[in-house]
Amino acid sequence: MLKSAPAYSFDLPGSGNGKHIIILGGGLAGMASAYELTKLGYKCTILEARDRAGGRCWSVRNGSTNQETGRPAITAKFDDGLYFNAGPSRIPHHHELTLHYCKELGVPIQVYNNVNEGAYYFAEGKGPLSNKKIRAREVHNDVRGYMAELLSKSIDNGALDAALTKEDTQKVLEYLAAEGGLDIDKLYKASARRGYAESPGAGNLPGKIGEAHKLADFIQSGLLDPDFYNVAEYTYELQMTMFQAVGGMDMIAKALQKQVSASLKLGAEVTNITNLSEGVRVTYKDAVGEHQLQGDICICTIPLPVLSNINNNFSGEVSRAIDYITYNQTGKIGLQFKRRFWEEDDHIYGGITHTNNDLTQIFYPSYDYLGKKGILIGYYNFNEKAQRTGELSYADREKLALEKGRLIHPQYDAEFERSFSVSWHKTRYNMGGWAVYSGETRKNQYPALLKPDGNVYFAGEHLTYLNAWMAGAFESARSVVSSIHGRVTGQQLVYPTTK
Amino acid sequence: MLKSAPAYSFDLPGSGNGKHIIILGGGLAGMASAYELTKLGYKCTILEARDRAGGRCWSVRNGSTNQETGRPAITAKFDDGLYFNAGPSRIPHHHELTLHYCKELGVPIQVYNNVNEGAYYFAEGKGPLSNKKIRAREVHNDVRGYMAELLSKSIDNGALDAALTKEDTQKVLEYLAAEGGLDIDKLYKASARRGYAESPGAGNLPGKIGEAHKLADFIQSGLLDPDFYNVAEYTYELQMTMFQAVGGMDMIAKALQKQVSASLKLGAEVTNITNLSEGVRVTYKDAVGEHQLQGDICICTIPLPVLSNINNNFSGEVSRAIDYITYNQTGKIGLQFKRRFWEEDDHIYGGITHTNNDLTQIFYPSYDYLGKKGILIGYYNFNEKAQRTGELSYADREKLALEKGRLIHPQYDAEFERSFSVSWHKTRYNMGGWAVYSGETRKNQYPALLKPDGNVYFAGEHLTYLNAWMAGAFESARSVVSSIHGRVTGQQLVYPTTK
Repeated sequence: MLKSAPAYSFDLPGSGNGKHIIILGGGLAGMASAYELTKLGYKCTILEARDRAGGRCWSVRNGSTNQETGRPAITAKFDDGLYFNAGPSRIPHHHELTLHYCKELGVPIQVYNNVNEGAYYFAEGKGPLSNKKIRAREVHNDVRGYMAELLSKSIDNGALDAALTKEDTQKVLEYLAAEGGLDIDKLYKASARRGYAESPGAGNLPGKIGEAHKLADFIQSGLLDPDFYNVAEYTYELQMTMFQAVGGMDMIAKALQKQVSASLKLGAEVTNITNLSEGVRVTYKDAVGEHQLQGDICICTIPLPVLSNINNNFSGEVSRAIDYITYNQTGKIGLQFKRRFWEEDDHIYGGITHTNNDLTQIFYPSYDYLGKKGILIGYYNFNEKAQRTGELSYADREKLALEKGRLIHPQYDAEFERSFSVSWHKTRYNMGGWAVYSGETRKNQYPALLKPDGNVYFAGEHLTYLNAWMAGAFESARSVVSSIHGRVTGQQLVYPTTK
Repeated sequence: MLKSAPAYSFDLPGSGNGKHIIILGGGLAGMASAYELTKLGYKCTILEARDRAGGRCWSVRNGSTNQETGRPAITAKFDDGLYFNAGPSRIPHHHELTLHYCKELGVPIQVYNNVNEGAYYFAEGKGPLSNKKIRAREVHNDVRGYMAELLSKSIDNGALDAALTKEDTQKVLEYLAAEGGLDIDKLYKASARRGYAESPGAGNLPGKIGEAHKLADFIQSGLLDPDFYNVAEYTYELQMTMFQAVGGMDMIAKALQKQVSASLKLGAEVTNITNLSEGVRVTYKDAVGEHQLQGDICICTIPLPVLSNINNNFSGEVSRAIDYITYNQTGKIGLQFKRRFWEEDDHIYGGITHTNNDLTQIFYPSYDYLGKKGILIGYYNFNEKAQRTGELSYADREKLALEKGRLIHPQYDAEFERSFSVSWHKTRYNMGGWAVYSGETRKNQYPALLKPDGNVYFAGEHLTYLNAWMAGAFESARSVVSSIHGRVTGQQLVYPTTK
């Protein structure tokens, strides 16, 4: 059984007595730190380079702007009420701290429908199933059927005689028949689970079960390749139940911002971080000019690829960690359509279509079901694919999304209205999606950032084992607040402080 | 690819010219028939025995009443805003007609979270895993892992040499490694997919993966038994995406009722149905006394076990069909709790816990996540288990639900407030859950009810291949409206009329 994660309550004993904490970065980690520290009696100043708070917890709506390096700033032109989550779009049910903050801050949540058997797999230009839209239920149930059939056959051939008792073997055979939907000869011949060629209905309409795809066809079209077949759905972080904030994930950021607004300076870009023998001095520039700010302690949540270019007097060990820990490349495009054709025509409500091309994934919105218009995430890709896509101009990214997307949804041609794309590794003040550790960097660089460098503490998803997740930001915030408060009040506070 | 089901539009040519259609039963089939017939220019009268419309499409709230045979009527005492769906609680995403009516009638929908890897399997008193709460993710990923390992072993032993090419075999092995989460020796040793014994967090908390249960333990505790291991999740009807109406499934019935209120007589119990040479005569009794009503055509949607006891002059073939077609036994209990402990303590948000005892299933609500109070469906059982439970007094059903339920959720003791149970096969005006056909009754009895007996037509989920589903009621309504309108206007109308 799962051991209880940190309990929700975070009532540390003792007071910060007005000590001044300068927090660099107004994302979730920075704002959550300020929120908790303020409760404990600290004075906080959050310096946020952008004109908005929230960092990667950002939903793109009409009027949202972004700045990628070496390009003009762009502004989203979407219809009112429509949005897409450019950053985090999913909350796993076991990320209790994220759900806790939703509850504490009054942010309503709704199910994010990550698993949808009605969405498609699409293998562009590969094998016998090339360029066919195949429902996830067809892939999953056909493959499950074939594998159950293969294992049943092996067992009948005596291949497992040593592994299981005779009685247990019989039970496994019964299980396989049910699991795979096998016939009485232990053969997989398709079942209603994979869907119907003709739907069942009233009167004389019993329905007609679709014909199974061949196992060899799946294999040759690459649908069983580990990077295509969606085992991601099995992972702990992507299993249902998943949630999203109603109205856009940045409702969480906005709710936090409301709590810490007195401490928050927007448009304040940090240019220098200097540890002093007593306290810390931070230089930042805003629309007016350059400023210096002195505090007792600093929490730096700035993403490492950005921090790497900010002047500082950190130790060599810390500087090396900042330079060596890598971030991934990732991007999304939001495509606004006149009509929710994926629901009306394709009967896809939420979930993900998987492709082998540069789109990688199409996300269908988990809100406004049966509504009029909607925004699809036309691609959500990573690494080399995100690298290639990110190099394109905004217009060419849109072109790519439309050209590849219309292979799956020809309705794109008639229904498309507008796009907005974000390449996180090219986005100013981010320069990466999230921290990606190798065994080596986790071992040799990560520990340097877990302890303070003088009076500077580090926090963010990159200082956790919950990389990419909002929960990482929240857990890290609580962890660093525990450390600072322990130091200031002379207590031994071990994070997580309550179980 | 799925062929298009009946398109939403239902604009039949020609007019009913005020012909009078008497509709027996104000459930979804009866009301949808009246709704469509009224649009076509018919005069409709719906006779509904109960003081409410909707039939089985019924959400139990504060003040809801029910009458089981041989017992006093009972009234639900739940807090305002809380409900449970005593009847249908799920809409498959491919039941387009149900979703269509939600859209046309303005009923908002939300995801019904049928798949939740965080819910439990619970084998009471059986084998090594007896009385342990096992997360669905543990069962699913452990079993998937072991099966992938077994098949990989068999392949290595050459058991499948004939079945696949060497290249395809290699691909299958790679797939199995990914699918099962196997190690490099092709062994399943548990993976993060099954959850953590200690959750990953910030700083020095990498998390600790839980230990896999043994395959033999699963087998001996009956967890692989086809009637326990949840292959139901794979079925076409229970695959995600699933929906529910916001605020209770009977919002659909209420929206229909609003449309047909002028035609609807509540509290009107049919006692006699007589085919005349011209038209039909229906006798019913209400609070005032007995009445006769004459019409041109009758649509009878009364459930067969009830219809079987109503006087009529149907043909022998029709009477036999009414008597021979069986309905299932099924029941649910709603349990109101002071606190959503399943969310707060167990981190279960929606979905289903499966048991091998008489509870069969516990349904967690898919609404009001993170709210204060909530209603669990404490059991939802069928057949013998529903038979046994149905025999119990209301108090003893509650006792059973609490005694068995607290084995899984000991919080029941402190948090329980009130219950309300429904045994559908004992409920007046239903006397069964839904029609369950054998091959024999489908072949020999079903066809008799698909054609009119004189001027009486039959409709309802029982006259479809969508038994138990609201979609059956809607498809049947459209089918019978097509038949009647074709006859009245002298047209050949073949249901489904549009593709």
